[in-house]
Amino acid sequence: MKIICKKNDLIESINIALRAVPSKTTMPILECIVIEVEDKISFISNDMEIGIRTDVNGDIVERGVVAVNARLFADIIRKLPEEEVIISTDYDFNTSIKCGKSKFNLKGNSNEEFPPLPVISRERSISISQFSLKEIIRQTIISIADNDLNKIMTGELFEIKNGILRVVSIDGQRFSIRRINLSENYNDISVIVPGKTLIEMSKILTGGIDEIVNIYFSSENSGGVKSQDFRNILFEFNNTLFNSRLIEGKYFRIDQMISNDYETKVTINRKEMLECLDRSTLFIKESDKKPIVIKVTDNNMQFKINSVIGSMNEDIDISKEGMDIVIGFNPRYLIDALKVIDDEEINIYLFNPKAPCFIRDDDEKYLYLIMPMLNIGTDN
Amino acid sequence: MKIICKKNDLIESINIALRAVPSKTTMPILECIVIEVEDKISFISNDMEIGIRTDVNGDIVERGVVAVNARLFADIIRKLPEEEVIISTDYDFNTSIKCGKSKFNLKGNSNEEFPPLPVISRERSISISQFSLKEIIRQTIISIADNDLNKIMTGELFEIKNGILRVVSIDGQRFSIRRINLSENYNDISVIVPGKTLIEMSKILTGGIDEIVNIYFSSENSGGVKSQDFRNILFEFNNTLFNSRLIEGKYFRIDQMISNDYETKVTINRKEMLECLDRSTLFIKESDKKPIVIKVTDNNMQFKINSVIGSMNEDIDISKEGMDIVIGFNPRYLIDALKVIDDEEINIYLFNPKAPCFIRDDDEKYLYLIMPMLNIGTDN
Repeated sequence: MKIICKKNDLIESINIALRAVPSKTTMPILECIVIEVEDKISFISNDMEIGIRTDVNGDIVERGVVAVNARLFADIIRKLPEEEVIISTDYDFNTSIKCGKSKFNLKGNSNEEFPPLPVISRERSISISQFSLKEIIRQTIISIADNDLNKIMTGELFEIKNGILRVVSIDGQRFSIRRINLSENYNDISVIVPGKTLIEMSKILTGGIDEIVNIYFSSENSGGVKSQDFRNILFEFNNTLFNSRLIEGKYFRIDQMISNDYETKVTINRKEMLECLDRSTLFIKESDKKPIVIKVTDNNMQFKINSVIGSMNEDIDISKEGMDIVIGFNPRYLIDALKVIDDEEINIYLFNPKAPCFIRDDDEKYLYLIMPMLNIGTDN
Repeated sequence: MKIICKKNDLIESINIALRAVPSKTTMPILECIVIEVEDKISFISNDMEIGIRTDVNGDIVERGVVAVNARLFADIIRKLPEEEVIISTDYDFNTSIKCGKSKFNLKGNSNEEFPPLPVISRERSISISQFSLKEIIRQTIISIADNDLNKIMTGELFEIKNGILRVVSIDGQRFSIRRINLSENYNDISVIVPGKTLIEMSKILTGGIDEIVNIYFSSENSGGVKSQDFRNILFEFNNTLFNSRLIEGKYFRIDQMISNDYETKVTINRKEMLECLDRSTLFIKESDKKPIVIKVTDNNMQFKINSVIGSMNEDIDISKEGMDIVIGFNPRYLIDALKVIDDEEINIYLFNPKAPCFIRDDDEKYLYLIMPMLNIGTDN
């Protein structure tokens, strides 16, 4: 195998492939990137949940394939001078990297033990811009659960219905819903995508509005056996194929938890509220489970927090419809939601101190539900 | 006590005072900054080795003094809106911070238990620009020892003699010497300043060429008793007094280790050599104790490293006087020295594979000595 590439092209492709190289594994071969040179040059990585194949710009001198330690390979390429890089292997997988007057030798491996990427049959697909996909992930990933107690909560619902993509995440204390209109009318689809998959993919999406991601859904498992439900998902964008297992099971019945009623409606400047909440976190250790207490009266929202190390209170002008209310929240949850909303003014809908609040826009592009904390004390 | 300050003035002064707030301590009062309001507003901190008093811009409404938790105070001020900040205390040291519509309350403390800063008699002094002091610290701090096995090695020699300030650090494997001419002829002084003191002070020196630091040396201990040697040092700059204990003891006889002889003299481009050494570190774990092997022949320096994970070799054009030589070094030590030298071309002086190398300029503004590693193998 022998290829000639530009340093920056190599770095770009390595950074993509690294997303599926596990940092800890009991299978050392998974710490490798496979360099496959046939009609094209491809870098392949696989952590058994996510798999990536990305094509590399460069000249092919001789075909072949080798698996090299991903992090060492990445570190070497990054430190090379800005010149042409020649990568070649001998029959024993010894890999030589030459650039200017620098010569490196690495012990490479055969790719025989490297688990092949699943072949995803492209039964169903949708297309969406990189920008929309990256945004919808950022705006919902805040409320996935980070432990495995309930596997379904570690993923996000991707639901396609009536030409709308709805993405939902829920962690037990709150949920996030985002909707976008698709350009075509696709058949109904409902799958649960692992949060880790979405986080890693987000990092390599360039986020262009004009760049398209094709998303394929496949009901074959890695052995090629078809099942009733979808088992795998494949994202195709730029020169990259990014596949992942789906989470099996039935998602929560979200719609039953949503209400359009309210007793109190507050309209408030998002940035002012966010900065105030941010200050309040100084007085809370995560272990304290102390709420920020919010008191809504006509034209005023008071934020108040008391802890052993000190206290804060602050007023913000609002407009209000309905009843006065005093209610407590984990400020972290409010902050997470407010950070991923772009609107300058937001509407918060409240019922009573024991019921969740809803933050949502009139077009239902977003809806964030947050459960209150009940330990708001008696001095409020 | 009551003062009115601008947020940014407070932040600037807090960041200075934080340098002497210990992150771990058995004396909780040391985690405080003392806010002292008399003729001026001052922030005071003290970790029992370093002490800082810095003056704060602002308006005094009422005099007084309070000790507040330094990190909480810093975090609150940083998160305030960009408006006027009013800080006041009541008779019980409860401290209120008001800014716009935000109100914070902190439990403060009396400063009674806070250890007062030592009164440094200003017996002897020198003056130097902030730029020169900050540079000379950066250029020598690389070779202080970071453990306490030999206390003297954790500090730097500051020696004033014949109108020259010489700063020396040594860690057993290498030493660094920098010299600068002083603007006046001072009496001879020789003290050992703790490395930690220099590192913390460097961070608050603004580094201006026209800004002066006055350095005072005092032989009084904190009880006010005079001794034969200098015990304390005080740096005075901008609105800040920065004092530190000195390390007691006699410094190493550096001059005996310096030689102007050589068998081989190499002139090489500093940046090319630095980048090559940087690449070589990819193949070394600190625990390996693997040297980079350098082979000097006419007009060429070859860098070579072999390890279990791979190998590297690289050639750099040089000009050479004297004998060919093969010698091994810890590349980290060469990198540290090359990073703090500004010259485009450097001269390296060598004797034999078992003797240290010297990197020095013709004016003796700098001299870096590095011991070789002897395990360079037989295949070179």
